[in-house]
Amino acid sequence: MALNTGGAAPTERGLHAQVLAAVGEDIVDGIYPIGQVLNQDELTARFGVSRSVLREALRVLQSLGMVEPRQRVGTLVQPRHAWNLMDPQIISWRGRGREYFVQQRELLELRLGIEPVAARLCAARITDAEASAIVAAADTMVDANAAGDERRFLQADIAFHSLILRGSGNAVMGHFSGTVEALLRTRPRERRGTITEYTSPSAHRHNELAAALGRREPEAAYRWSFELLSATLEEFIAEG
Amino acid sequence: MALNTGGAAPTERGLHAQVLAAVGEDIVDGIYPIGQVLNQDELTARFGVSRSVLREALRVLQSLGMVEPRQRVGTLVQPRHAWNLMDPQIISWRGRGREYFVQQRELLELRLGIEPVAARLCAARITDAEASAIVAAADTMVDANAAGDERRFLQADIAFHSLILRGSGNAVMGHFSGTVEALLRTRPRERRGTITEYTSPSAHRHNELAAALGRREPEAAYRWSFELLSATLEEFIAEG
Repeated sequence: MALNTGGAAPTERGLHAQVLAAVGEDIVDGIYPIGQVLNQDELTARFGVSRSVLREALRVLQSLGMVEPRQRVGTLVQPRHAWNLMDPQIISWRGRGREYFVQQRELLELRLGIEPVAARLCAARITDAEASAIVAAADTMVDANAAGDERRFLQADIAFHSLILRGSGNAVMGHFSGTVEALLRTRPRERRGTITEYTSPSAHRHNELAAALGRREPEAAYRWSFELLSATLEEFIAEG
Repeated sequence: MALNTGGAAPTERGLHAQVLAAVGEDIVDGIYPIGQVLNQDELTARFGVSRSVLREALRVLQSLGMVEPRQRVGTLVQPRHAWNLMDPQIISWRGRGREYFVQQRELLELRLGIEPVAARLCAARITDAEASAIVAAADTMVDANAAGDERRFLQADIAFHSLILRGSGNAVMGHFSGTVEALLRTRPRERRGTITEYTSPSAHRHNELAAALGRREPEAAYRWSFELLSATLEEFIAEG
């Protein structure tokens, strides 16, 4: 099937993004299973794109660890442990399919490691304006939840966690906010209470974390961030 | 300057890797500063490569968050917070230059978050063979250090941390072992005692962590991993 049937003529850049997403999702879904050789002639025919557009997409998949070119063989689909599982694109692709639950658990375990450390650093480093923005995001989560405004809730939730990760003053943790955002955005398809319901204990933990950061208390910030993530993780596993 | 002057004719794949590394390192070093537009004509001339080889390299840099194409402007160098700072390639590029120390500290802070959580999961999940391999890696570190064999020491150190991260049974943490390996490999240029000297307290912490994993004690494994990383981080900052 050629991409972009109908509508305006796609730009080459648009085609690149579409081929990348289509092949990426098909690898995640096992349509191109691990160990398979991707045939460039078949792929250019399937998508109706030039060889050079296809090759750019394959280079990106290679840099994500999903494929690897091998001389005189072709482009091989790599095992999952080689994939860059923190990349927002891969998180979005996995979030759509049957890997959703495994990914949620694994990334909650990872966040349980990273976010409390980030919160501790954040308490020691943020400006007054950053501290106020975190408290405001926590307040907005409560308001938006009460109003049943899911979109506003999601934006505030993303802002809350991103501000803490970026406020750590650690650029690697700041960059990890992209991973957390991609993960939170996969949530609309979720049906578990743990992930979709903003319960009063969960709101309490977010508010206490924001307050600890407002008071610049590193150990309290560490503890509330740990409480927040470990409660979510435990409830998520218990519902499993 | 064209790449590959002299020697065998490079494969297109070899050229791609060379252009990628050259442009990546030049961005890290500020030769192409943040906000600069990369001119494709100048770059193809500089490296003596085809436009399609250059474009594949730029797509990879884009997927690493280092550049972003903008219509009617060109390819822009992105701010550092957008870069995928956990990617082994970027770690290696940053590890060669003046960002070495910032990167060490930031990734030690990140490891302090992730590795104790991984060690706790690892204690609950690994097989006998995996536990033995971790103890063996710790023993090899002691032997290789006593023998002054730096190469064997580095291999054992990488194996030790990778086995724990992969033994967590969490694929994202397993993948993070590539980040830690890239970081450990930047060490030969290091001159600080914290990073290069295998002191007896440091060996003790590695050995106790291995022993806790051998006994399948999650909380002891968590604590020793935390001790190990926090001591290294504190000493690294204190030497700063």
